[in-house]
Amino acid sequence: MAELKGSCIVAQSGGPTTVINSSLCGVAQEAKKHKCFDGIYASLNGILGVLREEIFDLRKEKPSTIEALRRTPAAAAGSCRYKLRSLEDNREDYERILDVFKAHNIRYFFYAGGNDSMDTADKLSQLAREAGYEMRAMGVPKTIDNDLACTDHCPGFGSVAKFIATMSMEAGRDTEALYTTDTCTVLETMGRNAGWIAAAGGCAQRTPVDAPHLVYVPEVAFDMKQFVKDVKKVLHKLGRCFITASEGIQDKDGNYIAEIGGGFAKDSFGHRQLGGVAETLREIIENKVGVKCRSNKLGTCQRNAMHFASKTDSDEAYRVGAQAVREAAKGTTGKMVTLVRKSNKPYRCTTGLADLSAVANGERKVPRSWMNKDGNHITRKMRDYITPLMRGEVPIRVDKDGLPVFMRFEKKFLPKKCQAW
Amino acid sequence: MAELKGSCIVAQSGGPTTVINSSLCGVAQEAKKHKCFDGIYASLNGILGVLREEIFDLRKEKPSTIEALRRTPAAAAGSCRYKLRSLEDNREDYERILDVFKAHNIRYFFYAGGNDSMDTADKLSQLAREAGYEMRAMGVPKTIDNDLACTDHCPGFGSVAKFIATMSMEAGRDTEALYTTDTCTVLETMGRNAGWIAAAGGCAQRTPVDAPHLVYVPEVAFDMKQFVKDVKKVLHKLGRCFITASEGIQDKDGNYIAEIGGGFAKDSFGHRQLGGVAETLREIIENKVGVKCRSNKLGTCQRNAMHFASKTDSDEAYRVGAQAVREAAKGTTGKMVTLVRKSNKPYRCTTGLADLSAVANGERKVPRSWMNKDGNHITRKMRDYITPLMRGEVPIRVDKDGLPVFMRFEKKFLPKKCQAW
Repeated sequence: MAELKGSCIVAQSGGPTTVINSSLCGVAQEAKKHKCFDGIYASLNGILGVLREEIFDLRKEKPSTIEALRRTPAAAAGSCRYKLRSLEDNREDYERILDVFKAHNIRYFFYAGGNDSMDTADKLSQLAREAGYEMRAMGVPKTIDNDLACTDHCPGFGSVAKFIATMSMEAGRDTEALYTTDTCTVLETMGRNAGWIAAAGGCAQRTPVDAPHLVYVPEVAFDMKQFVKDVKKVLHKLGRCFITASEGIQDKDGNYIAEIGGGFAKDSFGHRQLGGVAETLREIIENKVGVKCRSNKLGTCQRNAMHFASKTDSDEAYRVGAQAVREAAKGTTGKMVTLVRKSNKPYRCTTGLADLSAVANGERKVPRSWMNKDGNHITRKMRDYITPLMRGEVPIRVDKDGLPVFMRFEKKFLPKKCQAW
Repeated sequence: MAELKGSCIVAQSGGPTTVINSSLCGVAQEAKKHKCFDGIYASLNGILGVLREEIFDLRKEKPSTIEALRRTPAAAAGSCRYKLRSLEDNREDYERILDVFKAHNIRYFFYAGGNDSMDTADKLSQLAREAGYEMRAMGVPKTIDNDLACTDHCPGFGSVAKFIATMSMEAGRDTEALYTTDTCTVLETMGRNAGWIAAAGGCAQRTPVDAPHLVYVPEVAFDMKQFVKDVKKVLHKLGRCFITASEGIQDKDGNYIAEIGGGFAKDSFGHRQLGGVAETLREIIENKVGVKCRSNKLGTCQRNAMHFASKTDSDEAYRVGAQAVREAAKGTTGKMVTLVRKSNKPYRCTTGLADLSAVANGERKVPRSWMNKDGNHITRKMRDYITPLMRGEVPIRVDKDGLPVFMRFEKKFLPKKCQAW
């Protein structure tokens, strides 16, 4: 493949994660090693930054700033939830992106995100091909939900898994200490359609007395009567019950459980109230089991817990970013870098490639057989799959006040060359 | 003071904290150094364990188990919310406690807890004096709320402060990355009557762009119109807004804001729903400001975050436990060990003593002057007070799966000598 001279751009998309900045670091540091890249740019707020021509120069950032990406959560270049639809429906947007790329001679596009982002990258490379503009588009996997197709697991998941399991252990000790009054606790996790994060909470349980005693995922239909029975059974045995539940659990007809309580409740503005799954399960326990229950909802804290990130996850996030650059420099395009588990004991993982379109159209849910027969806890297979991904700690910097130190880009923007969007 | 030979007992009470077990460790390790203690016991679930005669022998625990208390959150001996009322109203309970103490020749009582616990210890020592039973009762301060009188601060607070500030920084970066869509975030903290924990979140802000941009505490009357103005002002300047709010914020008439939404809402069982402050503020923002808002409620996770505890806090928790033992061995009784700040730069702190009754009847709220004029953020004085308490990290053990390792007692119970309670 002939060398393609031009600039490269990296963008971050969708919900932030603890380690997506490690992928950005991998892209930026690897790109510096290759002569084919004239400029190394980042787009502000994902694809929006390209559309708005808000592009800044990563070569003008201090090397220490780039390195500190590995210790900074969320998305340092900014993220977005801007979804481009099909080429037919959204041709203007795609053409605008191409115009901006042409104006700055951007020939390489690295997009860190989930399946929508892979779809955007895929369609963009289609359009470029049609337009005769030579460019290479590579996907960098990112999602705490761990639901991308074609890859063993997703960067971002290992760290949220470690944090949710740790929170289950720690808050579980609270329930254990106060079981004479505060008998049940529900910990709500993210994961709208896939239960991987809630399942990770299950890894905190090493012996039957450990929290969580019950784990609920969207892939197993939730039955309120069975739930009440499950809780009573645990209470009978242990006198306390700690539950980890995915925000996306649904009944057999596909209704979200988070909406059961809310479906009846109106807030003070007269709108339907969605208090979340933890609140709904708390309400069920207090009313149907008759014991005090507490609800914890970590929300966006869970996907940014840099202070206790997984080193395995952080290193792999870096690796998929760097590998995307190496592949593009070699001539690869239209692919997402995947993670391929070679062995579990010891854990060994390498990278592979998948078609962007295959990732865009796929989804990886929790297999029913990885949950127990009753559908209320994980199996050994799930545990063996998740635990290697949580291993190791990322050394962070802590300042004189005992708080983490994070970086911010200086953001030297490129002069605009296109009309305003 | 003549030496008092007999056994000692330690109990933990109220809401667990990250470091109350460090205090237990301080009591147990210090007690071993003094010959006056025949037995070194712990009560299961606070004062309940004495009432039920469920007492276990700390000398029969492995020294490594005792040492691991310093790395284990919550309350390893179990806690309770059992409140003894006045001697007149609750004489039976107090007499029962004394009977159990007499049966096991318990002459020293160390109670780690908040002001209710100090009250219990105080009344118990009154009754013992009346009954001519020589015993010494010492209080060991513990509360994440940091609202105990007579002490500069309370063990447990420094660690929750560090965690809430860290979560504000981390989740704040999420809001910063996604501001184009998920524009506001509310982080709810504990602290029903005192705003110290929410104020600690304020320490995360070093520059105006940093989260949290607004901080609300119960000591400043909350005004919904002003709140909407505050949020709009931040949005106008930064395009995003991160808010840290205490669960106990109230309007000028003393109505809890958490109940505003809930006051109108009925759950599916027809009960009034209390979704918490974060949910209520989220609702106000979405309806009155018209932007998307996310709510995070760390719940019991915040007071057990051993994996990122404050070393200053952990060491001080140990110290007040050990000091209580030294004082009791010397003859002191009816006192709580206090923390006395000698200087702030450098931070130096020593211990003192306060009457149990003074602690029992006091309360320490956030001074109005430690919040800014608008009542929506902290002042430098508050920052200078809190930051030294968050300093340093406690090395924890992490197992092969990347998760913390906590201890559990073996709990060798003493044979029962009293009638069942």
